[in-house]
Amino acid sequence: MGRATERRRVVRIRDGAVSARPDTLAGEEPLEIRLNGRPLAVTMRTPGDDFALATGFLVSEGVVAAAEEVRSVVYCAGARDDGTNTYNVVDVRLAPGVPVPETGLERNVYTTSSCGLCGKASLDAVRTSTRFALGPGPMGITPELLAVLPERLRAAQRVFDRTGGLHAAALFSPAGELIDVREDVGRHNAVDKLVGRALREGLLPLEETILLVSGRASFELAQKAVMAGVPFLAAVSAPSSLAVELAAETGLTLVGFLRGRSMNVYAGEHRLDLAGAPV
Amino acid sequence: MGRATERRRVVRIRDGAVSARPDTLAGEEPLEIRLNGRPLAVTMRTPGDDFALATGFLVSEGVVAAAEEVRSVVYCAGARDDGTNTYNVVDVRLAPGVPVPETGLERNVYTTSSCGLCGKASLDAVRTSTRFALGPGPMGITPELLAVLPERLRAAQRVFDRTGGLHAAALFSPAGELIDVREDVGRHNAVDKLVGRALREGLLPLEETILLVSGRASFELAQKAVMAGVPFLAAVSAPSSLAVELAAETGLTLVGFLRGRSMNVYAGEHRLDLAGAPV
Repeated sequence: MGRATERRRVVRIRDGAVSARPDTLAGEEPLEIRLNGRPLAVTMRTPGDDFALATGFLVSEGVVAAAEEVRSVVYCAGARDDGTNTYNVVDVRLAPGVPVPETGLERNVYTTSSCGLCGKASLDAVRTSTRFALGPGPMGITPELLAVLPERLRAAQRVFDRTGGLHAAALFSPAGELIDVREDVGRHNAVDKLVGRALREGLLPLEETILLVSGRASFELAQKAVMAGVPFLAAVSAPSSLAVELAAETGLTLVGFLRGRSMNVYAGEHRLDLAGAPV
Repeated sequence: MGRATERRRVVRIRDGAVSARPDTLAGEEPLEIRLNGRPLAVTMRTPGDDFALATGFLVSEGVVAAAEEVRSVVYCAGARDDGTNTYNVVDVRLAPGVPVPETGLERNVYTTSSCGLCGKASLDAVRTSTRFALGPGPMGITPELLAVLPERLRAAQRVFDRTGGLHAAALFSPAGELIDVREDVGRHNAVDKLVGRALREGLLPLEETILLVSGRASFELAQKAVMAGVPFLAAVSAPSSLAVELAAETGLTLVGFLRGRSMNVYAGEHRLDLAGAPV
């Protein structure tokens, strides 16, 4: 079974001094997600929380929105020659009556194929497949509260401390309390793991939360926030143009370049308390 | 047609001071890659160098390895209702006699589906599909030379300067001269664009080059280096366990955490001149 970290020998060079020593690396293995036995997607991920990753991915794709819609999640038992289980294939069975999407979900919902493929089509796909309308969500969020979230995320990153090499995503309450944090070599996986755990605990839609991601805010991350009902997304680095468009269209608050008490608000600024300062 | 950047209004917060101003964002649009008219993959990318991205992707997947194997690359003309072209669908036609892969390449080569799916299978897939054995490549690379590459990459990043939000990948000669640099919201796209441009110019395999990436070194990036015949991969941040395994198995030199004169060598240290220091 894959592990979250691995030890390898590494040659360290520090200002001309060379030494060899063991180093800890972030684990990476492929995970195949199956839906009712049918292959759906493969993602390179850090092993761990695989059931949450699989179900969270299904939330992002609009397939499930409540724990009752999932009948079971299992590792596909060993088809290896030696009969062992790789723990790299997860099969999610839907509860009776839950519709299985007709489209081959090998590709994400927003990648519907046509010559008209464009950002507009991507936005449309999210709008038509979302199960939750974003509610008012947390209000009166201050820049001072946001400013301390990255360090709280960083303090909670266990694997990063050992490897320096993982993306992270965390859910916070409107008061800034850490609800959950996940790490992964893929930032989209970290968010899916958070969402999958919230699904299992009956917390969807995540109406009263702030989602913080360690890197940039791509369209895909904004999509995952909207699909899980998260009204507030903050990123340490830059958002993309399509992430901002999606946020503006759905009412998602999108904060980027969150670094200390400096940040940019790209959409949904009505949820921030800017102390009456002129904007 | 999509653009590399977009302007949006943003609310800036700097230590409590709030202002509203236009900001430049990294562009992000979906690109569908078709092979002989058949949909193959969709990637979220920064518009630009789309033909190079498509052909570079096909090099990464082991479909082509020389410019002569590509007959044509075109944008799929507008199937939008209004007849306009989105410039988001690229069709690559192979030259006569070039085998079209039988497997549905909707999923990457390393994602062959079986319950035995594991990192080992991923490594096997690269080994069996690569068109180039890695040659000896550049030798005697010094830490001093590597130390200056990140700042040369950074200096060449045009879009990053305006958006602060793009990944970059660059090819350098063994003397540290910048050969080419590409930027994209997806780091894998930046590498595919580099490889596709090199393919067009008849430079594959990229035997005498160093590939530098701005972020982490995942399995996917190491795979792309190997498939293009690049013998030396350096990353500003951490590698994953599977990237290191692939490097060790194929003879790829893999340097991580390249920050000034400090770095870690994870595999292929024989290409470095460590000045006889004990390792």
